[in-house]
Amino acid sequence: MSFRRHDIDALVSHARQGQARAVARLISLVEDGAPELRALAAALARHTGRAQVVGITGAPGVGKSTSVSVLVTALRAAGKKVGVLAVDPSSPFSGGALLGDRVRMQNHATDDGVFIRSMATRGHLGGIAWATPQALRVLDAAGCDVVLVETVGVGQSEVEVVALADTTVVLLAPGMGDGIQAAKAGILEVADVFVVNKADREGSDQTVRELKYMISLGRRGTAGPSWRPPIVRTVATTAEGADDLVRAIEEHRTWMLGHGELEARRQRRAEAEVEAIALAQLRGKLGDVLRGSALHGLAKRVVVGELDVYRAADELIAELGV
Amino acid sequence: MSFRRHDIDALVSHARQGQARAVARLISLVEDGAPELRALAAALARHTGRAQVVGITGAPGVGKSTSVSVLVTALRAAGKKVGVLAVDPSSPFSGGALLGDRVRMQNHATDDGVFIRSMATRGHLGGIAWATPQALRVLDAAGCDVVLVETVGVGQSEVEVVALADTTVVLLAPGMGDGIQAAKAGILEVADVFVVNKADREGSDQTVRELKYMISLGRRGTAGPSWRPPIVRTVATTAEGADDLVRAIEEHRTWMLGHGELEARRQRRAEAEVEAIALAQLRGKLGDVLRGSALHGLAKRVVVGELDVYRAADELIAELGV
Repeated sequence: MSFRRHDIDALVSHARQGQARAVARLISLVEDGAPELRALAAALARHTGRAQVVGITGAPGVGKSTSVSVLVTALRAAGKKVGVLAVDPSSPFSGGALLGDRVRMQNHATDDGVFIRSMATRGHLGGIAWATPQALRVLDAAGCDVVLVETVGVGQSEVEVVALADTTVVLLAPGMGDGIQAAKAGILEVADVFVVNKADREGSDQTVRELKYMISLGRRGTAGPSWRPPIVRTVATTAEGADDLVRAIEEHRTWMLGHGELEARRQRRAEAEVEAIALAQLRGKLGDVLRGSALHGLAKRVVVGELDVYRAADELIAELGV
Repeated sequence: MSFRRHDIDALVSHARQGQARAVARLISLVEDGAPELRALAAALARHTGRAQVVGITGAPGVGKSTSVSVLVTALRAAGKKVGVLAVDPSSPFSGGALLGDRVRMQNHATDDGVFIRSMATRGHLGGIAWATPQALRVLDAAGCDVVLVETVGVGQSEVEVVALADTTVVLLAPGMGDGIQAAKAGILEVADVFVVNKADREGSDQTVRELKYMISLGRRGTAGPSWRPPIVRTVATTAEGADDLVRAIEEHRTWMLGHGELEARRQRRAEAEVEAIALAQLRGKLGDVLRGSALHGLAKRVVVGELDVYRAADELIAELGV
């Protein structure tokens, strides 16, 4: 598959008009780590920055997928155009993710105000960590007001995806000391909104109490503008509490805009992304020099005592054109 | 502690005359990761390459320290000048290592043909992995014919230290399926000489048999020049077999010289060392640019859609002077 700059521009233009197929093809390009990634990034840049990126995370079994589906319905009812990105950083196969797509699509398949897409790691440089921000930009450029990023996998990867969001929603469910688990996973610090799902079950009051306590502990000595994460109770299977959640997300956005926090978060994200790309490119350049066997000759001079290792390293870097 | 180039040159000159205090101070400089490391490396370069570096490794309890001490005595009897570097990559403290020094020093304290030195990780960039090659160069320049590098720690670090040696001696002792343990640890592949220590104990014949079998398995299909690692039986506590070990090490050196293998190994080592230093310096340079806030401005332009992340990364690299 090879695209020229011209094709990329046409696809971006079609995506901006809301054509689902163009959106899907652009995200596939991103997922494949296609060589057109640079051209795509360039074409997207000035059409992005409008969408609110909402991360949805939580342990397996808390009801993430159902909550996302219900949230999409509620956002649509509020007149928002919605994108959903389900990310599975733990799987190199998109098979399972595609199945998830189809199941969820049933509710929203005929709604052209919703884009739903699953992404799996395809093993290219940086994997999901690189592809996700670009996929978000595609959905942003396609006119989504809100993009929900849901992690399908578990563990460390959740925190990475959280780092991509303007607003992070952490889901819990009653039982099993979820509050403490969340604290351990470092998720309390990153949550902007808590959801206690399955709120009709026994023990949900206890979970809310524990959570309030953990929040009060965690916020002691916090400097800077103070947002106290609200706790929303939901029953995703019946859509109970979905409007409360939409409201909480909206309030967080308003608060961020009022405190310069949205800009600050996006600034930090862009810095991390640019730094990661620059480091990867430097590593690549060094690899080229090594393959070009400059290293071999320099090491030979070290072995015979003509050159010390530090000066050899200097010369190697000089070969980079640094 | 600060040294000028002049002082470094004087210390190197004194070390080359065999002054133990100068050798000790130079290795301390190396261990501290002193800013004079570059000047030191430059001053040492043309005085190195003569010593045979012999790595001594094996699981705790096989009798490494005693074997090293006995080996020093045998090498001295053969008229060799000897350096010993005991490396503990698992400890940031040199206290324990110093104690080891003192105990072992008792046998060789009055012999000015022996330098003994322990090194511990001091937590500076790269730690032991960086410091050890430089410390070897100090002992090499000081006129040592053989430098024994003994790992005090356990596990992965052994393999790293093995990578520094011209000849690697792997110690085993009877019992506990040592042969299989060695195979698991990946140590069979790197051994040039095997020692079955405590050869007076029950089970030593069994250990030798197992080892022979493992070696025959491991060498199937091996390409290139073929050195079959000999198995030397020793009883380190009575110095039995020490001369056989000295002979095996000497034979390995002769074989390497005859097959271009010594040069090939040193070439690989120098390449790895130069590459590691170059990468660390690039990382440092990038850090300087980031601290200089070029990144902040670039990320800001990404956030407002003026620049895409790839072009921002390009500009960041351009700031490096690349």
